[in-house]
Amino acid sequence: MGEALKGLKRTIMCGELRETHIDNKVTVMGWVQRKRNLGGLIFVDLRDRTGILQVVFGEEINKEAFDKADGVKSEYCIAVTGTIVKREAPNSELPTGMVELKGEYIKVLSESETPPIYIKENLDAAENIRLKYRYLDLRRPDMQRIFMTRHKAAKIVRDFLDENGFLEVETPVLANSSPEGARDYLVPSRNYPGMFYALPQSPQLFKQLLMVSGYDRYFQIAKCFRDEDLRANRQPEFTQIDMELSFVEVDDVIELNERLIQRVFKEIANVDVKLPIERMPYKTAMEKYGSDKPDLRFGMEINDLTEAVKDVDFKVFQDALSNNGSVRAIKAEGSAAMGRKQVDKLVDFVKTYGAKGLAWIAYKEDGVKSSIGKFLTEEQTQAILDKMEAKVGDLILIVADKNSVVFQSLGALRLHLAKELGILENNNEFRFVWITEFPLVSYNEEEKRFQAEHHPFTMPMDEDIQYLESDPGRVRAKAYDIVLNGEELGGGSIRIHDTKLQERMFKVLGFTQERAWESFGFLLEAFKFGPPPHGGLAYGFDRIVMFLAGTDNIKDVVAFPKNQNAFCPLTEAPSVVEEAQLKELGISLNK
Amino acid sequence: MGEALKGLKRTIMCGELRETHIDNKVTVMGWVQRKRNLGGLIFVDLRDRTGILQVVFGEEINKEAFDKADGVKSEYCIAVTGTIVKREAPNSELPTGMVELKGEYIKVLSESETPPIYIKENLDAAENIRLKYRYLDLRRPDMQRIFMTRHKAAKIVRDFLDENGFLEVETPVLANSSPEGARDYLVPSRNYPGMFYALPQSPQLFKQLLMVSGYDRYFQIAKCFRDEDLRANRQPEFTQIDMELSFVEVDDVIELNERLIQRVFKEIANVDVKLPIERMPYKTAMEKYGSDKPDLRFGMEINDLTEAVKDVDFKVFQDALSNNGSVRAIKAEGSAAMGRKQVDKLVDFVKTYGAKGLAWIAYKEDGVKSSIGKFLTEEQTQAILDKMEAKVGDLILIVADKNSVVFQSLGALRLHLAKELGILENNNEFRFVWITEFPLVSYNEEEKRFQAEHHPFTMPMDEDIQYLESDPGRVRAKAYDIVLNGEELGGGSIRIHDTKLQERMFKVLGFTQERAWESFGFLLEAFKFGPPPHGGLAYGFDRIVMFLAGTDNIKDVVAFPKNQNAFCPLTEAPSVVEEAQLKELGISLNK
Repeated sequence: MGEALKGLKRTIMCGELRETHIDNKVTVMGWVQRKRNLGGLIFVDLRDRTGILQVVFGEEINKEAFDKADGVKSEYCIAVTGTIVKREAPNSELPTGMVELKGEYIKVLSESETPPIYIKENLDAAENIRLKYRYLDLRRPDMQRIFMTRHKAAKIVRDFLDENGFLEVETPVLANSSPEGARDYLVPSRNYPGMFYALPQSPQLFKQLLMVSGYDRYFQIAKCFRDEDLRANRQPEFTQIDMELSFVEVDDVIELNERLIQRVFKEIANVDVKLPIERMPYKTAMEKYGSDKPDLRFGMEINDLTEAVKDVDFKVFQDALSNNGSVRAIKAEGSAAMGRKQVDKLVDFVKTYGAKGLAWIAYKEDGVKSSIGKFLTEEQTQAILDKMEAKVGDLILIVADKNSVVFQSLGALRLHLAKELGILENNNEFRFVWITEFPLVSYNEEEKRFQAEHHPFTMPMDEDIQYLESDPGRVRAKAYDIVLNGEELGGGSIRIHDTKLQERMFKVLGFTQERAWESFGFLLEAFKFGPPPHGGLAYGFDRIVMFLAGTDNIKDVVAFPKNQNAFCPLTEAPSVVEEAQLKELGISLNK
Repeated sequence: MGEALKGLKRTIMCGELRETHIDNKVTVMGWVQRKRNLGGLIFVDLRDRTGILQVVFGEEINKEAFDKADGVKSEYCIAVTGTIVKREAPNSELPTGMVELKGEYIKVLSESETPPIYIKENLDAAENIRLKYRYLDLRRPDMQRIFMTRHKAAKIVRDFLDENGFLEVETPVLANSSPEGARDYLVPSRNYPGMFYALPQSPQLFKQLLMVSGYDRYFQIAKCFRDEDLRANRQPEFTQIDMELSFVEVDDVIELNERLIQRVFKEIANVDVKLPIERMPYKTAMEKYGSDKPDLRFGMEINDLTEAVKDVDFKVFQDALSNNGSVRAIKAEGSAAMGRKQVDKLVDFVKTYGAKGLAWIAYKEDGVKSSIGKFLTEEQTQAILDKMEAKVGDLILIVADKNSVVFQSLGALRLHLAKELGILENNNEFRFVWITEFPLVSYNEEEKRFQAEHHPFTMPMDEDIQYLESDPGRVRAKAYDIVLNGEELGGGSIRIHDTKLQERMFKVLGFTQERAWESFGFLLEAFKFGPPPHGGLAYGFDRIVMFLAGTDNIKDVVAFPKNQNAFCPLTEAPSVVEEAQLKELGISLNK
């Protein structure tokens, strides 16, 4: 049975108490972290969102309070009134460790059963238990800090954007299914049986409409939804910092967002982001790092060996070269002595990325060892070593294939090796990079057509528009991603605001006039009425918070997350509903 | 064909230009409000979010710009560079009216067809056209001001709550169907065919869980959803300012929210809200105003005539009194001369609220006229006049029935008369009142059981807990609504945090133990682990913005609203989806 407050007021939070409060009479409220009864004295560590305060009850201090305190257990919710005194044995690990509260009065606000999980930092409990008892998991101080960080990050973003003339405008959650609607969550309509709303994957079309409406600078911290099989760091609903600006070009969007990023990371993580942030064209990123989200905290760049091996009489190399592919390599410094088994594992690793194999050259003290030694002349070997700037002790790992496979496998191998070799251990760097000049379209081999890399409204680069029809694959877009330590934080583009250009773009994508209008009619219609030049960007807010909180699990930054099956072990959503409800919606369950 | 910016940068917004900018070279971008060609001079009113600036092009200023400007039409999107000069004929109606821009260079960023609706303030176009061309409707300066107000209001709320220790925590949109789930929007699950998520009607359960988790003070500006037939001022998705506080009682929640209300209304509408805001128990509100959201900007209170008429030999009165009902009246000052037809209309009006009739007494110069004159003695008439404090010229309107009908019909009649008589014309008052001490439960005649007035977690008032089982209808709740000018802005309550009391409450509501656990199991389970005393409040944010913006149409404060059928004329949501998608979700459409 809990006692009611009956007018008792908290005067201060547990974690706020310091020596300046000595002799103050205070009332604190919180949860019992632990209790020790040392005979005549009972010590209670009392916890609230701000921290822990030691409370001492004594028969000498107040007998009634002492007796009552003796009955409390871990996670009881209590209120204590008393006087702050200097602690005889200070605890330097607690910010409040110089003082303690002499408990003169106690109320047991509610009792607690023994919790099924420990309420302590860095708990290592099974995920399904943590999610089922999420309200206890969220009680852990490290989790509480994450949500305080999340709140603060959102606040800083909003303050910054407000200062810079942005308006937060809410766009619909009950939206329409998108043309690539397979990943939409659907909502059956009761008023129009047989018809469905869709939860938005992003507010893209609405924010462009707001630009047409003259809102000039829009933002929204918006829930977005995607019904796809969840990988480790995906949630069916996720949060975007979404923005759009009128009368801007690439540089304007980037410059403003660099200041935003600098502010957030400085104020929360005390990280100094030097501006301007490096920019790297997509092509460079792929060629040097085999990825459009390169981790620049370490080198191990990919080198093109095509020239060096063009005469090597090795079928794999020659096949790659004659098929418009390439031969490229990375260098694992000081790894020449890597054991055969370990190297074999690397071979297996690249095969999962489509490579047919992995050639290697170990530059050892006693000469060069290589998996392709018999195909290489001494000069050819030397040419490779030179090109790789290899020193004694280095291991060179070579992939020959079509470029997409070469980049993907070497890019992945680079990250894999960095991990294996512990290159990033104790690295606290926050290494940002803008990736720019993305391809506008890519060729979908299956459907035998070009598809938009970003979305169909992305503006081509001025100097490439001429190739739009003749060589679409060559056209670069005014698109940009912001990447941090090898993870994409966000991306965006300048949009097409010219109807003629938009029509050309749709033609490239194989949209008939009808299909384009069917899919995006209202936006195309809107563009008839003086649309301004505009562009924008959207960040994955969850991802940003993960960086700020130093966790690599998205479930740590979402208060009530779903598991891998999009199920909530706490509320047991989704669940069955009444037949009558379905009937009203005009739908039936398949048997 | 639109021109690209190609490095041209806007240097200032149209509405910002003043005499201090004279001789400055500026570049502005925006839309052509109108263009006038006066021979050698062309005047363009250029509009952006901040206002209108006059731009003048002349053959003498720049021939090329002049010729190009001659081609622009209304709603073309253009950029102009030039020099700010003093205007020869100032326009005192424009904040920029002292200056104009000498247009030396112009770019036509995009052209515009003739818009189907005028881009002007206070447009009086058909709603379906406004919604279909929402992007043009939103271009109207009065609409833009509303969304600037909305942004600012949200910002002030967030700043205030942040300053007061609240954390904004996002709760799930893909939630579970609630026990009163009939109004839930459902989302079929692909991973669990036959099961459904539900969009939340409020984050109620999650915010209570956050209190259990020790987050202490939570808030969220959250989208909520209700699938019901839309009345004029409802939208299927709406926005709540939702908050919950730990270790508080009614006074704490009210005191904090009064400061919040004061801040918002001062900063946006320059309205001084005097604190503390008046509080009125539910019972008083019903007895005096026949409503739990009384409009206190005028009097015309309901008076109880039961004592005065207890001996009147009029069957309607006697029936009411003997059935535990009452006889009550309002007084329309100076309306004694109201014509018979008009009075008949009032009779019809109250009948729509269930009253069987409306008796009246007109206190005229030449004596008293009454629809029930033949039943009244002179003394009885005088007793009524005395009780009503009637003066010559007043009209007394009487309803006799069971109390619920009396209150409802007289409450509605009071508002109706205020409107008819123009009592509130030119009234700019913002009259707030807290309604408190709501009934905890009400009796559902149909289902023959008590049901929660607010929700089943609402705390009864301490002094009434004793009647919980013996006389539930008598128990008042620690619940409160904030009412402004007769509209409910928000409401909340202190919650039960004691499992025993919660069980008693469920029993009163006729929940079996099983059903309670089935419906709210995870919350009840959470309450086993030291829940703090807590309470909260939720505002209808759309409603608040309506007040701040001075509109009585919710569609004016929602950027992309649905119509009365929950349909979006712009995007045409909801719509049909592919059969394959339904199949994947395990559902079929009924024929």
